[in-house]
Amino acid sequence: IDSRLPQVGTTIFTVMSRLAQECGAINLSQGFPDFNAEDVLFERVAHWMRAGFNQYAPMAGVGPLREAIAHKVAALYGTAYDPETEITVTAGATQALFTAVAALVHPGDEVIVFEPVYDSYAPAIELQGGRVVRLQLAAPGYRPDWDAVAAAITPRTRMIMINSPHNPTATVWTADDLAGLAAATRGTGIVVVSDEVYEHIVFDGRRHESCARDAELAARSVIVSSFGKTYHITGWKVGYVVAPRELMAEFRKVHQFNVFTVNTPVQLALADYMADASRHEGLAAFYQAKRDFFGAGLAGSRFELLPSAGTYFQLARYRAICDEPDTAFVERLTRDSGVAAIPVSAFFADGRDERVLRFCFAKNEATLAAACERLCRV
Amino acid sequence: IDSRLPQVGTTIFTVMSRLAQECGAINLSQGFPDFNAEDVLFERVAHWMRAGFNQYAPMAGVGPLREAIAHKVAALYGTAYDPETEITVTAGATQALFTAVAALVHPGDEVIVFEPVYDSYAPAIELQGGRVVRLQLAAPGYRPDWDAVAAAITPRTRMIMINSPHNPTATVWTADDLAGLAAATRGTGIVVVSDEVYEHIVFDGRRHESCARDAELAARSVIVSSFGKTYHITGWKVGYVVAPRELMAEFRKVHQFNVFTVNTPVQLALADYMADASRHEGLAAFYQAKRDFFGAGLAGSRFELLPSAGTYFQLARYRAICDEPDTAFVERLTRDSGVAAIPVSAFFADGRDERVLRFCFAKNEATLAAACERLCRV
Ligand SMILES: CSCCC(=O)C(=O)O
Ligand SMILES: CSCCC(=O)C(=O)O
Repeated sequence: IDSRLPQVGTTIFTVMSRLAQECGAINLSQGFPDFNAEDVLFERVAHWMRAGFNQYAPMAGVGPLREAIAHKVAALYGTAYDPETEITVTAGATQALFTAVAALVHPGDEVIVFEPVYDSYAPAIELQGGRVVRLQLAAPGYRPDWDAVAAAITPRTRMIMINSPHNPTATVWTADDLAGLAAATRGTGIVVVSDEVYEHIVFDGRRHESCARDAELAARSVIVSSFGKTYHITGWKVGYVVAPRELMAEFRKVHQFNVFTVNTPVQLALADYMADASRHEGLAAFYQAKRDFFGAGLAGSRFELLPSAGTYFQLARYRAICDEPDTAFVERLTRDSGVAAIPVSAFFADGRDERVLRFCFAKNEATLAAACERLCRV
Repeated sequence: IDSRLPQVGTTIFTVMSRLAQECGAINLSQGFPDFNAEDVLFERVAHWMRAGFNQYAPMAGVGPLREAIAHKVAALYGTAYDPETEITVTAGATQALFTAVAALVHPGDEVIVFEPVYDSYAPAIELQGGRVVRLQLAAPGYRPDWDAVAAAITPRTRMIMINSPHNPTATVWTADDLAGLAAATRGTGIVVVSDEVYEHIVFDGRRHESCARDAELAARSVIVSSFGKTYHITGWKVGYVVAPRELMAEFRKVHQFNVFTVNTPVQLALADYMADASRHEGLAAFYQAKRDFFGAGLAGSRFELLPSAGTYFQLARYRAICDEPDTAFVERLTRDSGVAAIPVSAFFADGRDERVLRFCFAKNEATLAAACERLCRV
């Protein structure tokens, strides 16, 4: 078979979760909580199922959920999106990103991404015949370099894909970064695809600099978020996209023939659940406590922690332990020490290896404590 | 914006359901039941949610559901698929079809489809730079013409997309049709994508001729089905694909970066629910009774019913009523008579109009009776 994606193997998240399970290791690799969401959310799903709301939702999502999203985005970031024409519920953020690329990138178009980069971006671009232009976020600060962006832009540049709070580096963009993006793309016709799935998870008093904060930038941005990350239901696979009407019209052309629509009772339950804003407002403090607990637990280890300003990830250098490649080291860590993580080289096309692992701290304290104990013995 | 799908508008299903709602009409257009699924299924979803199974499922689907699918397919059609490498759970059949095309069709490849054709096929092909080759199923029998297929095959033919039981014509392939397909594609390297979402809905003692009945054909087929159609939960958006290992490996490369995976508690609930085979075995009789009830109710009308051998659709000619184009007539029917249907011209690229409407009879008897009363007055 002549593969359309010859370079694609199994995603690192599957590889590491599988290995963790095989070895009975504590799984701090793939990003998901090991605690449950609230019963009240399940009760709402059960309610809507029993009430008979089990047939197709409207293609763009159920009205109440799109309205709740519009309300939240306007309250937090000040931009008003029209639920009818500018908001679409998706089968997770990954589907939203894939669909945005499929809808907007023509064969031969260039798309700028920043490495380390989430592993679904490049295959989505390449599948559409787009060319991936990789810029680097350099350790330890992992800041975008706007001069490099300006130099990389050509007449074929169609899209720039960004992600803040950033997976895997746990950095969070500042207002200056957002201004840099706005300046770099102004007047170019470049579409910004902004992956903001960790929008509610920013620490130490920072604020999330959504593209929706800048009306002029928002007018050329497709913004993606995730209910899975926000409400501890990564396995429900529900997210959403907001974008100005013209971009959303193109998005929906593909969306309607890709998944068409998303689980109806789940959407209605989420609309009910969103009515209480404290649920997403409390998230930053909730995860900051976990970050601090995990960090304190590793204080006696030989891992060197990099700053975690947001997301539920913690990067750690291990040069004081050994100089093995991160893929070899993480395998040994999983097998011999019983803790699985993600090797950050997986987020670089050339496998660049800075001897850094990513740990997910979206776990119960008991899980984190057990993992820390094991990691301190390494 | 330079659209990637300039010819795509809003799908006819959305257009007609919206019009039905606006007019307060009985909605026999978009294909979905107006009765609820069983409480026991909802209880299983609630059970798995409360039990904490709300994080990412494995990329290909939860083990018990893939095993239940393998068991069903082997029991019904005699081909054994390996759950580990040959079965993937999808976010509905539409996503399965879209992903199969994206994974297997290269720019410039030709894909044969039969008109009238479900409206997602051609945009999915065109988005990947494929060329849609349209063959005709001619009224009133709507049988495939294998000489025409043989004549249409070129060295660029990459895929042939089929659908039986067929939407919208309600025809069902015979063993001869399946043999024709096997013969036409043998030795060509052409992949068959077989949309079998109505596999359990065949009438009058017919049997469903799945591509999985013929081991040699199955070896080059990607077979798609839908839990939505089978268990009265179209709004849950869960389906599946079975395919031989090499084709499935390509499918999964795209699947993992499109939706990655599907709602976990729903998958686990479906695995529980499938354990009782009578649930899908009873479906044919259940819908045959509805077809007959609807047909009897229209006996006094001026609609001329075409045979419905499967699916939950009934085609009806209306030449005895008027000679308006089907799009105009269906709008008038919805507005003035209070019954919405689908104009079959929507399934032809050139809008070929045989003055035929498609009615969905997946409705309660009360709904069907009320619709028949209105239709008899037309
Ligand atoms: C789609 S599984 C990966 C989950 C995730 O976002 C991560 O671990 O980075
Ligand atoms: C995706 S909405 C259309 C449902 C359906 O299969 C039909 O009405 O033909």
